[in-house]
Amino acid sequence: MKLSEIGEQGLLQILQSFCPSEIIGDDAAVFTTQPHQSLVVTTDVLVDNVHFSENTTSAFDTGWRSVAANLSDLAAMGATPLAITVGLGLPGDTEVNWVENLYQGMSSCLQPYQTPIVGGDVVRSPTKTIAITALGQVHPQQTIYRHTAQVDDAIVVTGVHGASRAGLELLLHPEQGLNLTASSQQKLKLAHQRPQPRLDVIPILKDIFKLNDSPFRVAGMDSSDGLADAVLQICRASGVGAIIHSTQIPIPDVFPTWLSPTKALEYALYGGEDFELVLCLPLPIATQLTAQINHAAIIGCIQVEPQVHLISDNKEIPSQTLTLNQGFQHF
Amino acid sequence: MKLSEIGEQGLLQILQSFCPSEIIGDDAAVFTTQPHQSLVVTTDVLVDNVHFSENTTSAFDTGWRSVAANLSDLAAMGATPLAITVGLGLPGDTEVNWVENLYQGMSSCLQPYQTPIVGGDVVRSPTKTIAITALGQVHPQQTIYRHTAQVDDAIVVTGVHGASRAGLELLLHPEQGLNLTASSQQKLKLAHQRPQPRLDVIPILKDIFKLNDSPFRVAGMDSSDGLADAVLQICRASGVGAIIHSTQIPIPDVFPTWLSPTKALEYALYGGEDFELVLCLPLPIATQLTAQINHAAIIGCIQVEPQVHLISDNKEIPSQTLTLNQGFQHF
Repeated sequence: MKLSEIGEQGLLQILQSFCPSEIIGDDAAVFTTQPHQSLVVTTDVLVDNVHFSENTTSAFDTGWRSVAANLSDLAAMGATPLAITVGLGLPGDTEVNWVENLYQGMSSCLQPYQTPIVGGDVVRSPTKTIAITALGQVHPQQTIYRHTAQVDDAIVVTGVHGASRAGLELLLHPEQGLNLTASSQQKLKLAHQRPQPRLDVIPILKDIFKLNDSPFRVAGMDSSDGLADAVLQICRASGVGAIIHSTQIPIPDVFPTWLSPTKALEYALYGGEDFELVLCLPLPIATQLTAQINHAAIIGCIQVEPQVHLISDNKEIPSQTLTLNQGFQHF
Repeated sequence: MKLSEIGEQGLLQILQSFCPSEIIGDDAAVFTTQPHQSLVVTTDVLVDNVHFSENTTSAFDTGWRSVAANLSDLAAMGATPLAITVGLGLPGDTEVNWVENLYQGMSSCLQPYQTPIVGGDVVRSPTKTIAITALGQVHPQQTIYRHTAQVDDAIVVTGVHGASRAGLELLLHPEQGLNLTASSQQKLKLAHQRPQPRLDVIPILKDIFKLNDSPFRVAGMDSSDGLADAVLQICRASGVGAIIHSTQIPIPDVFPTWLSPTKALEYALYGGEDFELVLCLPLPIATQLTAQINHAAIIGCIQVEPQVHLISDNKEIPSQTLTLNQGFQHF
């Protein structure tokens, strides 16, 4: 069945089953926030054949990924999610089933965080378009910004990098996975199809500062545009530089036997969409944090000198200075 | 100059000049809200050649109207605006100038309410798409819902109806304005091009309840989809009916000499996009409210019987029962 057959009102009735019933039917949604918290808001627009494609991504996964990206932006600010709104532009010949699967994917990603879809809009458009706005809240003194990294801060990543890029490669070119077990392949593909926003890291981080009786002080962002980009953006915003040790970057288990060291590091630094957090914080806190989070690691530290240096222990890869708008130097 | 010539980064730099500088550069925007207020959120998606067209609407007016519609949704809930986010999908051959004018229109509409654009996203898309999310706040006890209208409530409209529809007619068919003065034509066109969200009504309403030492009790919505639709939606949500007197509906000064009574009432009831408020409230409050607001009027009252009856004093127009999904009965 196509949208044109059930009309806007028919579709809205279906989509309302994904929203809390008490907020339906008014000009806007109303919900409560905790007092003395700042409001955090982030918006993403995703366009068919630009940001998603039916060839590589199911409607369910498109919904999951678009929500995950927005929740990751909230985690990157240290915030906890409150609600999302969804604006859809859809051609009349879109299958109703596609839209239901999209919403199921969004709901599944939101479910662990008990975050409701509080509203939105569905309109006719020649191009499938998804506009998501995520709202969160954060205590003003516990907000994570990019511009507050300090010299000698440890740089922590909350998980492996390169998995999403490798998963995309396997989805596009299945023959590249011949040397991998089915379960390894599945794990990498899922890293691409169902990324997990690292909202779980935020309460752990707050607890560690509290246990240490230390004022919260974390700079950071997420690694949605790649790990190298995240370190460079934080350094630029904070007016500092960094040293990164390539061997310290956590990568998927199968990378060393499956990929060349160059390719593995390229995926880890520039692959993007791993949706991990890249955090700069005092070393004692960093060591406690990495002890509590699987695959988290200290990958380097902040320095006065404004460059970001990659130190390589591998003869195949030269140590080098990373720059924005420039990929990996293959010699 | 086209977007493809300056790239996403170039465009973002231009658009950031429309945002408060302190909120730029992180994964999400952070801002403060007042304690003990509920958060109100509304989202609209507008698509080229569906909701706007370069033939009838300048980029400035497209920006103005898209913000006005969202602010009107906040006013309809009794809320005051906090911030908006803007998600844009744009083809590469879009003129940079068009985007700047769009943002100027949005900023001009926001300016009286000191409401910032706190973020957004700009992506490549084959179809020009504007997704706006407006955030507001309201005291929980002063929220306006559709479902709380009570029998014997007076029904108030905050201004004239039909002007936006008439203005659109003049923009599409200028020859229809031959009997009107230039200033009358301009006034109607502006009603369509630069509608004013009725946020000004909310503090007046609160003050009147306070002066009367009476608990705030208002049901309502805006008339963006037409006055008839608003009355019907409120009645349906509240499980009540209404009597509307056609002669009490405020219409533009020029309608009686310019349009037939049937056409004038059709524009007023079904024209849409006047963005006035339709409010149901106790009669003593209603009379004080209409006394303080130009062109506001009591147009009828809420009744037990679940129909919405239109009482006509004009022989050309039969008294009739209004229904959803059905326009005006021309006999």
